[in-house]
Amino acid sequence: MIKGIMPPITTPFERSEIAYDKLEQNFAKWNKTPLSGYVVMGSNGESVFLTREEKLRLVDAAKKNMDSGKILIAGTGSDSIKETVSLSNDAADRGADYVLVLTPSFYKEEMKSGAFVRYFTEAADRIKIPLIIYNVPRFTGVNIEVDAVATLSNHGNIAGLKNSSENMAHTAEIIGSVPRSFSVLVGTASVLYPGLAAGAAGGILALANIAPRECVEIQRLFDTGKHNEASKLQTKLIRANKAVTSRYGVPGLKVAMDMLGYFGGDPRSPLAPLCDKDRKDLKSILKTAGLVD
Amino acid sequence: MIKGIMPPITTPFERSEIAYDKLEQNFAKWNKTPLSGYVVMGSNGESVFLTREEKLRLVDAAKKNMDSGKILIAGTGSDSIKETVSLSNDAADRGADYVLVLTPSFYKEEMKSGAFVRYFTEAADRIKIPLIIYNVPRFTGVNIEVDAVATLSNHGNIAGLKNSSENMAHTAEIIGSVPRSFSVLVGTASVLYPGLAAGAAGGILALANIAPRECVEIQRLFDTGKHNEASKLQTKLIRANKAVTSRYGVPGLKVAMDMLGYFGGDPRSPLAPLCDKDRKDLKSILKTAGLVD
Amino acid sequence: MIKGIMPPITTPFERSEIAYDKLEQNFAKWNKTPLSGYVVMGSNGESVFLTREEKLRLVDAAKKNMDSGKILIAGTGSDSIKETVSLSNDAADRGADYVLVLTPSFYKEEMKSGAFVRYFTEAADRIKIPLIIYNVPRFTGVNIEVDAVATLSNHGNIAGLKNSSENMAHTAEIIGSVPRSFSVLVGTASVLYPGLAAGAAGGILALANIAPRECVEIQRLFDTGKHNEASKLQTKLIRANKAVTSRYGVPGLKVAMDMLGYFGGDPRSPLAPLCDKDRKDLKSILKTAGLVD
Amino acid sequence: MIKGIMPPITTPFERSEIAYDKLEQNFAKWNKTPLSGYVVMGSNGESVFLTREEKLRLVDAAKKNMDSGKILIAGTGSDSIKETVSLSNDAADRGADYVLVLTPSFYKEEMKSGAFVRYFTEAADRIKIPLIIYNVPRFTGVNIEVDAVATLSNHGNIAGLKNSSENMAHTAEIIGSVPRSFSVLVGTASVLYPGLAAGAAGGILALANIAPRECVEIQRLFDTGKHNEASKLQTKLIRANKAVTSRYGVPGLKVAMDMLGYFGGDPRSPLAPLCDKDRKDLKSILKTAGLVD
Repeated sequence: MIKGIMPPITTPFERSEIAYDKLEQNFAKWNKTPLSGYVVMGSNGESVFLTREEKLRLVDAAKKNMDSGKILIAGTGSDSIKETVSLSNDAADRGADYVLVLTPSFYKEEMKSGAFVRYFTEAADRIKIPLIIYNVPRFTGVNIEVDAVATLSNHGNIAGLKNSSENMAHTAEIIGSVPRSFSVLVGTASVLYPGLAAGAAGGILALANIAPRECVEIQRLFDTGKHNEASKLQTKLIRANKAVTSRYGVPGLKVAMDMLGYFGGDPRSPLAPLCDKDRKDLKSILKTAGLVD
Repeated sequence: MIKGIMPPITTPFERSEIAYDKLEQNFAKWNKTPLSGYVVMGSNGESVFLTREEKLRLVDAAKKNMDSGKILIAGTGSDSIKETVSLSNDAADRGADYVLVLTPSFYKEEMKSGAFVRYFTEAADRIKIPLIIYNVPRFTGVNIEVDAVATLSNHGNIAGLKNSSENMAHTAEIIGSVPRSFSVLVGTASVLYPGLAAGAAGGILALANIAPRECVEIQRLFDTGKHNEASKLQTKLIRANKAVTSRYGVPGLKVAMDMLGYFGGDPRSPLAPLCDKDRKDLKSILKTAGLVD
Repeated sequence: MIKGIMPPITTPFERSEIAYDKLEQNFAKWNKTPLSGYVVMGSNGESVFLTREEKLRLVDAAKKNMDSGKILIAGTGSDSIKETVSLSNDAADRGADYVLVLTPSFYKEEMKSGAFVRYFTEAADRIKIPLIIYNVPRFTGVNIEVDAVATLSNHGNIAGLKNSSENMAHTAEIIGSVPRSFSVLVGTASVLYPGLAAGAAGGILALANIAPRECVEIQRLFDTGKHNEASKLQTKLIRANKAVTSRYGVPGLKVAMDMLGYFGGDPRSPLAPLCDKDRKDLKSILKTAGLVD
Repeated sequence: MIKGIMPPITTPFERSEIAYDKLEQNFAKWNKTPLSGYVVMGSNGESVFLTREEKLRLVDAAKKNMDSGKILIAGTGSDSIKETVSLSNDAADRGADYVLVLTPSFYKEEMKSGAFVRYFTEAADRIKIPLIIYNVPRFTGVNIEVDAVATLSNHGNIAGLKNSSENMAHTAEIIGSVPRSFSVLVGTASVLYPGLAAGAAGGILALANIAPRECVEIQRLFDTGKHNEASKLQTKLIRANKAVTSRYGVPGLKVAMDMLGYFGGDPRSPLAPLCDKDRKDLKSILKTAGLVD
């Protein structure tokens, strides 16, 4: 079972090419924290801007630089089952422990439970390592329903779900509908504590790129029954989390990394770097949250 | 401060006219439960289908039939500040303790924080009793942002917010941005426990029409530190709550009331009564939740 | 059959109260144009901000000031059939020729074809004057489907549809599905020419408040087979129309009226007057369209 | 300048692999019609389900089987500029005349005019053949604004726009904002005639897979000033077009092809073949439209 906190790591670019040395520096810092593992090629990794070769090189780089005690999850999903299977198996060969597979989403009107069950069943049947379903309505425009997750949770090679919806009714109903061995991971730090309280196993959190210890601390407080403290820390981090996710997106997360001693750098085009005003606002939000001085 | 669990009560109709005797019967049952109060003319009360006279007669009827130890909240909001103030003050004269005022929503593109602050400030200035903001994106198509609630929470005559969004990040961020005297109430039973864990004061819950004791029990468990039990009961009720809210709507809630010894009856047109198949499915869901035998 | 161009007239306010003398001035100007009639209490009339008494006084004022050769349409719809019928009949008694009735929209998920057919059938059965269906997804969040309009078009007291959707496939499919005696009116000047080409009978157009002659001219050009000229004039007006509708809304339309010799004035709260920057942009757009010097 | 009617051709599969012989048969039929050209790897070609190799083989197959007097457009867009450029240039090397490039859409909130201008400028700068922008909000969840198209229309290597929005105000405003040499193509047969009347150069139409002659005939009628006939034929085809697009999607289009003597076959998973009931409904709609006997 997958547990704990994992960042979907950003992909560092210099002059628009992947900067592997910067990635190494970031890993050196993250490795010292109690993070459970890493996700490469997630939404915050600008996966959609990478070529197939770049993706596989990223898996290699992560494997080489990460603490061997942690797990490695590779984001490999696209609408094409054929390509998803092929890329997933290549990632597995390079050492990924799990693949994180986005719901297909292009034909939105047809992407209902039946299509999701077909897609993930066929993919999981043919991928060598366990698959984690990735639901992120904000980016895909589709939302996987409880019944589809319930059905898929019984597949031997589907290990869990990353649910980036902030709708706690949805997450809680899913948790009530799947076996205990199926890991439901929240997808944003804003709902980490309520998610854990509802039975989630952990989270894949953009915020864990810049505040790994604080995210892990929420889970430790929860695990030791310190609900009030967990709730307080949760509340303190919400605005910071919103700033590096929905408000300022990946460009904001990267600026925050630069402010916190990691290498963030610029996003790849067509994303644009944050303007000065937004940088200032972001800094002020991170200060209020106690993340920067 | 408003605390506890309150149902937005359904409005009983017979031959499409309000059946005051049936309302009396329902109150007789609800009065025996530990509910904190009642909301008349809420979304589940089919308020939008009632004339002004009917609304005021409903306030009278509630006042007459309810346990005097409980509070009475009247839903009085519309896009017109003038009409909202007038109806609210008439409801106050008939004994309502609070008014629940919907966010204006017709001119969706202009309904941003500035407009919400203007609207609720002007309304609260002119209404005799305290006002509770009512945010329900599912019906209005607009969503009040954290900054607007934070500003409005400092108004002396705005007592709280009913937030029917299931987005826990939104609710938790609001709770972290308002004074402790400002009551944030969740608007659906599916997120009652996580809402309380985030600091909510209670809930105005459709499910409390049919399962008042269970809803109150979640809050009691939470208040006594029994998080696991609260979470378990929460999970057990989620599907039943979804059935009487988003899935089958007010017609479903009314059928469930009929199944549970209350008078539900038919909704007013253009809403249609549930078909037989949906009634069966609903019964089965209520059975699984342990609400009917 | 309803034909031609009609403005949904704005409601003039001074110190937030209806300024009947200003309304009289506006009518004096509009009466000299070839407009077919007027709509009071439409979306551009800020109908949702008016009390019942104000609405009826507006019908009186329109009737008194308008050219007797033109038709008067009163916007009277709300989710409540009972209130819609009552207000419609009161408007009829004061001289309205037609009522324009908004689709019910609060319970969005239930507002499908069946509910629309029930609502409009019951309303039309009980209203003394012919009813025009009003579909405006931008404000209501719901959209009436072709099949419902097709069914309703056979009701003896339903005279037509104002379709404010800019989706020409929707409008054209409706026109192909209703009797020729049923008037389909486009709801925004941006699609007047294509709508006429698809068989529409005219339009109820915000832009006709400030550019009545130009709007009528498009229809005249179309009627005389001058397609190229109609299309050119159409294209010339699109940006101006967008400015006084989706971009700057009712506040923008009112500013444009002030610029063009009508009384526009401020909208009612919570709408806010346009800021200076937006006024300048608007003026520049109206200049480009040849509407102001 | 690109003119006329082109089908975004479906990709025939047998046992889930591309059936090149069936493609050849389809081309044999299409080549006899007055279509201007073909689009491979469009939305109706299930491009998102194809691997990179399959896409390039499709370009080869199209080039081999198509009438040499027609043009070939290849759909090559993805969020990654790098991959879009690489795939586009490979398609160019295999004989494609134009590339049709989808708006990037993953980071929806950031995909505003600035991002679209950056994306298409960088792509067009580096692609060997002219680029056509592809806007399809139904699938991408984003919509390119008029100002971005106006800016991009001045780029020497951007030849046009396929606009699959049915919003005629949007299409007409774009046409009024670009040079006459920039081809605006409508993206669905339901708005072909109004689009042409607004100045469009033609259309890339799913319906042209099964009714190429009828689609071309609408344009011929328009070009010869026969507006009434064009409008009538347009209206006759709307329901059929809706059936093979929004209602039944690609699976429906493929069934219609089978009914009309082309090879349609099954879609690739996770899309599912049409059920029997839907097949019957579809047949009846095609009959009413006069497309099948």
